[in-house]
Amino acid sequence: MESIVKQSLLYDFYGELLTEHQRSIYEDVVYNDMSLSEIAEENGISRQGVHDLIKRCDKTLSAYEDKLHLISKFQTTRRMVEEIHKKTRIFKETKDESLIDEIEQISNDIMEL
Amino acid sequence: MESIVKQSLLYDFYGELLTEHQRSIYEDVVYNDMSLSEIAEENGISRQGVHDLIKRCDKTLSAYEDKLHLISKFQTTRRMVEEIHKKTRIFKETKDESLIDEIEQISNDIMEL
Repeated sequence: MESIVKQSLLYDFYGELLTEHQRSIYEDVVYNDMSLSEIAEENGISRQGVHDLIKRCDKTLSAYEDKLHLISKFQTTRRMVEEIHKKTRIFKETKDESLIDEIEQISNDIMEL
Repeated sequence: MESIVKQSLLYDFYGELLTEHQRSIYEDVVYNDMSLSEIAEENGISRQGVHDLIKRCDKTLSAYEDKLHLISKFQTTRRMVEEIHKKTRIFKETKDESLIDEIEQISNDIMEL
C-alpha cells in the first residue's frame, strides 16, 4: 500500500471520484487511523476484503495522478509560495530590496507554470 | 456548448481522461479552431456526430470539475499570486513597506487554501 501521507494527498485531490462505499472505508484508514481488522468488523467484511479494497483505491487514485499530475503541479506552486513567504520575512529583518526582485520573479514564474 | 475559453481550461486540466479519439476531435475544435464541418469531413463522420461528441466531452469534463473543483482552486491561487506580483511592482515605485506585510499575508493565505 501507499504511505499514509501519499494516500491522504491522493484522497484529498481525487477522493470524490471513488464510490461512496470506497470513500467511507478509505477515510477510516487514512483519516480515522483505524486498523484493517476494526474496519473489517465494522463493515462486516473480511480483513483481506478491506486490504484489497484499499489497494484498489490506491491504484485508482494513483492512476488519476499519473494522468493529470495535478498534485505535483499544486506542490510545485506551494513550494514557490513558501519561498515568497520566507523572503518577505527576511526582507523585514534585512531590508534587502533585491529580495523583492526575487519575489517578483517567483510570482511571475508561478503564473507561467 | 461551453465557451472556447472554458473548454480549453477544462481540456487543459482533465483532457487526459478522455479517450484518444475524443481528445483528437476536441483539440481540433478548441486548439485548432476548426469548424464542425471540417472536422466531420476529416474524420468521415456527420457534422451532427461531431457536435454530439463535443457536447458529450463538455459534459464529461465539466463533471470532473464539479466533483474535484481543481480548476477553481488553481484560479484562486493564481489570482492571489497576481496580487503578489502587482504589489512587488508597486513597492519598487513607492518603497511602501506595508506592501511587504500584505505579500506575507497573501502568501500565508495561499498556503492555507
